[in-house]
Amino acid sequence: MKYLWLCLIIFVVVSAPVKVVGQSSKTQGLSLEDAKRVIAAAEQRARQDRWNVVIVLVDEGGHLIHLIRMDSVQTASIDIAIQKARTATFYKRSTKVFQDRVAAGESALLSLPDMLPFEGGLPIIKEGVVIGAIGVSGVTAEQDGIIAQAGLDAL
Amino acid sequence: MKYLWLCLIIFVVVSAPVKVVGQSSKTQGLSLEDAKRVIAAAEQRARQDRWNVVIVLVDEGGHLIHLIRMDSVQTASIDIAIQKARTATFYKRSTKVFQDRVAAGESALLSLPDMLPFEGGLPIIKEGVVIGAIGVSGVTAEQDGIIAQAGLDAL
Amino acid sequence: MKYLWLCLIIFVVVSAPVKVVGQSSKTQGLSLEDAKRVIAAAEQRARQDRWNVVIVLVDEGGHLIHLIRMDSVQTASIDIAIQKARTATFYKRSTKVFQDRVAAGESALLSLPDMLPFEGGLPIIKEGVVIGAIGVSGVTAEQDGIIAQAGLDAL
Amino acid sequence: MKYLWLCLIIFVVVSAPVKVVGQSSKTQGLSLEDAKRVIAAAEQRARQDRWNVVIVLVDEGGHLIHLIRMDSVQTASIDIAIQKARTATFYKRSTKVFQDRVAAGESALLSLPDMLPFEGGLPIIKEGVVIGAIGVSGVTAEQDGIIAQAGLDAL
Repeated sequence: MKYLWLCLIIFVVVSAPVKVVGQSSKTQGLSLEDAKRVIAAAEQRARQDRWNVVIVLVDEGGHLIHLIRMDSVQTASIDIAIQKARTATFYKRSTKVFQDRVAAGESALLSLPDMLPFEGGLPIIKEGVVIGAIGVSGVTAEQDGIIAQAGLDAL
Repeated sequence: MKYLWLCLIIFVVVSAPVKVVGQSSKTQGLSLEDAKRVIAAAEQRARQDRWNVVIVLVDEGGHLIHLIRMDSVQTASIDIAIQKARTATFYKRSTKVFQDRVAAGESALLSLPDMLPFEGGLPIIKEGVVIGAIGVSGVTAEQDGIIAQAGLDAL
Repeated sequence: MKYLWLCLIIFVVVSAPVKVVGQSSKTQGLSLEDAKRVIAAAEQRARQDRWNVVIVLVDEGGHLIHLIRMDSVQTASIDIAIQKARTATFYKRSTKVFQDRVAAGESALLSLPDMLPFEGGLPIIKEGVVIGAIGVSGVTAEQDGIIAQAGLDAL
Repeated sequence: MKYLWLCLIIFVVVSAPVKVVGQSSKTQGLSLEDAKRVIAAAEQRARQDRWNVVIVLVDEGGHLIHLIRMDSVQTASIDIAIQKARTATFYKRSTKVFQDRVAAGESALLSLPDMLPFEGGLPIIKEGVVIGAIGVSGVTAEQDGIIAQAGLDAL
């Protein structure tokens, strides 16, 4: 029995990118299943108007869970969509709030870290707690916002 | 007719990350449809052994097309999977080549830019040309490699 | 014959940044020949008015294909020209679009990733698809733009 | 006369990316003409054996003067060639010196900043002073070195 424990410890220490012990499927607020449902709904909304976009979901810490880039989207939209999602989770609000305030003249906001002031990033809230965010980029900021909302509505 | 042109011009100038005119669906070597098929096959292979991983596809320039993170995967695996895919496309070869050579003592390789020497990154080749890459991270490097190969086999 | 195969395998495994097997000359949208023609035309236009500049060409993914820095150009123009070209390919439009919009008061644009809002960056389009971009920096933004256009006109 | 000077100063301060006064062609050790001659010779040597590579020239400060990427070269070679050239000018020696020492076991060298220990980077020396460097990447390190030397021989 002691030997077994030793083996286990050695295994954990030695194996480099080690798999998570147990692999319980509830460690993060947003499961991959949730993410797929959200992105599928957003993608469907986008295709409805033939809008080509990048759609991403991040967890509460701003780390990617799911990303799709539709064909022909400008490359810049990858980072823009990611940054919108990060803005939404880091600041716990829609990126549109920042867009409106910057448009109203609050240029000081532009120096905020991890903040992209364009509509299309929305926090995902569960029981009052932000558990991640969706970010969309590729068409106009307003259209990006419509797609992001369609994604959230699927949750 | 004149009005239509005016609308179009205003639309193009005003809309921020504007959508590409025409939106032909063949601009990138790997379409999102291709990417979904590859990642679905890789995910299925991973689930078969209850391996939880991050799987990514990048285009030839190293830019993300598709990413999924299965539940409970270590956060670091997101960047590891991306960097494996970038290594595979930027160096036009499997990341395992670098893993083996570093293991054989070629430590100088560690200073190469955009190079992650762990199995699990494979270039995607079409008619002799590298058009992108797949990257997998989350279990052991060898298992990551098995998943990546299963993805490519679906193309 | 067996020996030949062995040599080939050893060569591929041993050689560090190994050359691509086959070396087909059509892997990128823009060949070096294309790039030389574009930059030669741009350089000639620049010399016509004794304008000293940096001229760069990047592929669709934003990676350098060709660069020249004329004598006496400010060092900063190297990165400026590269970033103009990257802006043009990542956003699939002329950098002048961003210059005009920022000048018109849209300061929020300044937070966009990989975006330099100065004239002198133009996407290179082939059969409706962006295959790269040219970037010029060194004189005024308007003059940079004239040089960039002269380069494109040579394609 | 005093007024004229004042105008000149205001002109220099106000005009943003201003062109260099006078534009003398001797401000940098390596002129673009020199660079073109070096790279043309290196390219010719490479084509002689059908080696596809990236060739770059940097000035004494490590900043790009000239770069060409031949068709089908792996993307990673762009940064590798640049880093070889920077190593050669920043350390005033051939990158092969570092390659040999790392191969001989001096792994501590890998932590040196701006140091890539692969043959193919050579300093350019004029009257005993380093005025820049050439960097080559794309085939084997030894072949990269042959191409770099062929470039220098043209000076």
